[in-house]
Amino acid sequence: MNQSQIPYKIYLDEKDIPTSWYNVRADMKNKPAPLLHPATLEPLKFEDMQPIFCDELIRQELDNDTQLIPIPEEILNFYKMYRPSPLTHAVFLEKALDTPAHIFYKFEGNNTSGSHKLNSAIAQAYYAKEQGLKGVTTETGAGQWGTALSMACAFFGIDCKVYMVKVSYEQKPFRREVMRTYGAEVTPSPSMNTQIGRKINAAHPGTTGSLGCAISEAVEVATQTPGYRYVLGSVLNQVLLHQSVIGLETQAACKKYGIKPDIIIGCAGGGSNLGGLISPFMGEKLRGEADYRIIAVEPASCPSFTRGVFAYDFADTGMVCPMAKMYTLGHDFIPSPNHAGGLRYHGMSTILSQLYADGLMEARSVEQTSVFEAAKLFARAEGILPAPESSHAIRGAIDEALKCKETGEEKTIIFGLTGTGYFDMTAYEAYNNGTMTDYIPSDEDLAKGFASIPKIK
Amino acid sequence: MNQSQIPYKIYLDEKDIPTSWYNVRADMKNKPAPLLHPATLEPLKFEDMQPIFCDELIRQELDNDTQLIPIPEEILNFYKMYRPSPLTHAVFLEKALDTPAHIFYKFEGNNTSGSHKLNSAIAQAYYAKEQGLKGVTTETGAGQWGTALSMACAFFGIDCKVYMVKVSYEQKPFRREVMRTYGAEVTPSPSMNTQIGRKINAAHPGTTGSLGCAISEAVEVATQTPGYRYVLGSVLNQVLLHQSVIGLETQAACKKYGIKPDIIIGCAGGGSNLGGLISPFMGEKLRGEADYRIIAVEPASCPSFTRGVFAYDFADTGMVCPMAKMYTLGHDFIPSPNHAGGLRYHGMSTILSQLYADGLMEARSVEQTSVFEAAKLFARAEGILPAPESSHAIRGAIDEALKCKETGEEKTIIFGLTGTGYFDMTAYEAYNNGTMTDYIPSDEDLAKGFASIPKIK
Repeated sequence: MNQSQIPYKIYLDEKDIPTSWYNVRADMKNKPAPLLHPATLEPLKFEDMQPIFCDELIRQELDNDTQLIPIPEEILNFYKMYRPSPLTHAVFLEKALDTPAHIFYKFEGNNTSGSHKLNSAIAQAYYAKEQGLKGVTTETGAGQWGTALSMACAFFGIDCKVYMVKVSYEQKPFRREVMRTYGAEVTPSPSMNTQIGRKINAAHPGTTGSLGCAISEAVEVATQTPGYRYVLGSVLNQVLLHQSVIGLETQAACKKYGIKPDIIIGCAGGGSNLGGLISPFMGEKLRGEADYRIIAVEPASCPSFTRGVFAYDFADTGMVCPMAKMYTLGHDFIPSPNHAGGLRYHGMSTILSQLYADGLMEARSVEQTSVFEAAKLFARAEGILPAPESSHAIRGAIDEALKCKETGEEKTIIFGLTGTGYFDMTAYEAYNNGTMTDYIPSDEDLAKGFASIPKIK
Repeated sequence: MNQSQIPYKIYLDEKDIPTSWYNVRADMKNKPAPLLHPATLEPLKFEDMQPIFCDELIRQELDNDTQLIPIPEEILNFYKMYRPSPLTHAVFLEKALDTPAHIFYKFEGNNTSGSHKLNSAIAQAYYAKEQGLKGVTTETGAGQWGTALSMACAFFGIDCKVYMVKVSYEQKPFRREVMRTYGAEVTPSPSMNTQIGRKINAAHPGTTGSLGCAISEAVEVATQTPGYRYVLGSVLNQVLLHQSVIGLETQAACKKYGIKPDIIIGCAGGGSNLGGLISPFMGEKLRGEADYRIIAVEPASCPSFTRGVFAYDFADTGMVCPMAKMYTLGHDFIPSPNHAGGLRYHGMSTILSQLYADGLMEARSVEQTSVFEAAKLFARAEGILPAPESSHAIRGAIDEALKCKETGEEKTIIFGLTGTGYFDMTAYEAYNNGTMTDYIPSDEDLAKGFASIPKIK
C-alpha cells in the first residue's frame, strides 16, 4: 500500500454501490440459532411471524443459505442520495496520536437521519410498500431509528407511527420534530392508545417510559391495525443483511487502493452497524481467504459481549417478542441512567453472538468518559463531531493505534463511524462541564439481570 | 446535455478542489465602493484596519485587481476533509414537482459546522496563525459562524473567543456546546467583560442582547487584547473571495458533465454564500463569455435588496465598524422577532450590491411560511433537512421550476444549499404546529430604519 496515492476521502462511484446485500449466514458453518416461539419454544416459522413482520423481510430473516440477495432498484435509487459513503483516511487523527498505524473510517453519518440506520429503514419501508401495506409501526429511544424510518416512509408514501420513549419525547424534542417534518406520527410512550400503554400508565402513574414498553405498544398497534406491520432497526438478521452495504463498500474501497486492514473495529449495541461493517470481511475469514482481527467495542455499563451469557432470552423487556440465543445480560437488565446515547440493549444480534462464541471475533468494553475523551479528540482532529455510539469504535481504534505507537508496528485499522452527535449535545455538555460519570455494574447488579433469563437448554 | 449520463451526485476528485480563490472584483468594471472610515469619511487604508483584522486578510479585502489568489496548502489540506462538496441532480425534487426543468444543488452542509461558513473560517484562522497571533474573536447569533470558526481554530491550535447573543446562548445550547467541544470560549453577550457590554447591561438591565452588541464586544476584545484580531463570517470582500470555492467547484462539475445552467439561485443575508456560488459564473458574464440569470432570494421580513436603498451605511448596529456602500435597510433596522434563522442583516456585501446596482443580477423576497413549505417538500423528496436560510434558495428554485412546468421549458437551474437545519428544529416545530407566521414590514416600518442611514454623498 502506497499511502501517498490514497486520497483523504475515498468516494466510490455511484455505479460501485453494491447491487446485492451479502448474507454472512451463508458462509457460517455454525448458523445462528433460530428464534423461538415464546409459548411453544419451537423455532419460529414464517406463519408465526406473518402477523408482525412484512413477508419478504421474514424470508430474509429465515434465509441462512443465500449468499447474495439482490437489492431492488427502488432501494438503490434511494441509496444514491447518500451512498457510496466515504472511507476516510484519518491522517489528522494519526498525526494527533503520532502513531505509525494507518487509520481509516467508514462514515455513515452524512444523511439527515445522522446514522447508518437509513440503510435498513429504506429496505423495510420498500418491502412494506411492495406488500401493499398502509404503514408501519416502530419504537424509538433517542430517535435515530425513528428518524431514519420516517425519511424512508415519506419517500415511499406510506404511514409511519413511531412510539417514542416519553422521557426522550419531552426532553429531546429536536429529533421528534425531524420525524414530524417527514410526516411521521410520533406518540409518547406509554400512551393511552394501546392496551399495554393504558395498563402501564395505570400501574405506574407518571412513568416516563422505557424502550421495552415502546416496543410492546408498537407491536400491539401493528398487529391490531389492518394494513400495518412492525419494523425494527437492529438485532435482526434482516437488518444485518441490509447493513452489509457498509462492509461491501468498505471492501471495494480497500481493493481499489490496495488497503489491507489488519484490524476492523465497530461499536456494538444490538449489532446492526458492527454486523454490517464486518460481514463481508468475516465472509473472507470464514472462507479462509483472508484473516482479520475483528473487535466489537461496547459500553462498560451495558457489557453484553464481555460480561453476558450466551443463552436464549427474550428479545424485549416486555416479553412480547420471540426468544433469541444471544449474549445477554437478561431482559430485565437496564443500563444505569448515567449512560448516554444508544448501545443500551441487553442482548446482541444472534449472528454476531454465534461468531463471537466461535472465537471469530473479539470484544472489549470501554468506560463512558474515556469514550467522550476519544470523541473530542476525534472531533478536533478530523472535523466531524461523532455520535456517542460511534465514539466507542473511535476509542477502540485509538487504543489500537496507541499500541502501534508503543511497538512501532504499522498496522492498518478500519473502524465504523456510524453517525454524528448533533442531537447528543446534552451528553457533550456534561463531558465539557466535567460532570459526566462512569458506571461499571457490579457482579451483584449483573446477577439481577441474569436471573431474568429463562431456563431453556 | 444527456441527462442519463449525469450521476445523481457529482463528486469531483480531491485533485479538483480549486487551488486558487477567484476574485470577482478583478473582472468588475464598476468596482465595489471602498469602506469608509467613520470619523474621516476617507476610504479605509491598510493601517486603519490593522488593529482589527489580520494583515493578509486586509490585503485580500483591499485587492480589487488580482483575479486568482492561491490557496495555501494548509487550507487545502483542511478543505479535503469535506470538499469537494457534491453537486446533486435533484431528480426526486423534479419528480415531486413534475417539472421539465433540470434542478441541481451544490450542498455545503456536509460538515460539522453544518454550513458553508467553514470555507472562510479555516482561511481566516490560518492567516491569524501565520501572523503569529494568539487567537481571534468573533460574534455569533444562532451559531453557524461561531461553530465553523471554533473548528478552524481548533485545527490550527489558536484561541477562539465567541460572543454569542445572550438569548441564543440560553435558548440554543446545542451549538454553544459544539463550540465548547472544539475548545472555544463562548461568552453570552452583553457580558461584563467589556466596556461596551457593561454599558449596555447598565442601560438595559436584563437585556437578551443583539448581534450588533456582540460585534461591538468582539471588536473591543480583539483590539484591547495583545495578539488577538477580530474576524467576520460574511459581508466582507475577503469572505466572498474564500467562498468562491463553492462556485469554482460548481463550475468544474458543470463542465465535466456538460451542464449549462440557465438560472443560478442563492439565498442572501450578508451575501457570503450567494457571492461564493455566483462569483465564477458572474466572471464569465462580466467577461462576455456566457450569460446567466442570477437570482438572490431574501426574506420578505429583511428585504435589503428588494426594498433597501443603495447608500453608505454603518456595517453594524453599534456604529463601531466602518461604513460600506451597499443595499441597506438602515443600521437601526431589526427584523421582526417572528423571523427564524439567519439572513437578518440590515445590509449586504458591497460586491453584490454593486453587481445588483449594475443590473447584473436579480433579487426577490419570499415569505417565511412559503420558505418552510419548500423546505419540507425538499426534505421529503431529497432526504436532506435544509437550513431555514438555504430554504430561501429552495423556494426560489421551486418557483422557477414551476414556471417551467407552465411553459414547458427545460431550463437548467442550479441553487446553493448552504446548510442543514438540525439546530433549527424549533422553527420547524412552529411550522409543523401551524403557529409560524409571516411578516412584511410596512413602508412606515422601513422608514424608521432608513432614517438611521447617514447622509453621505
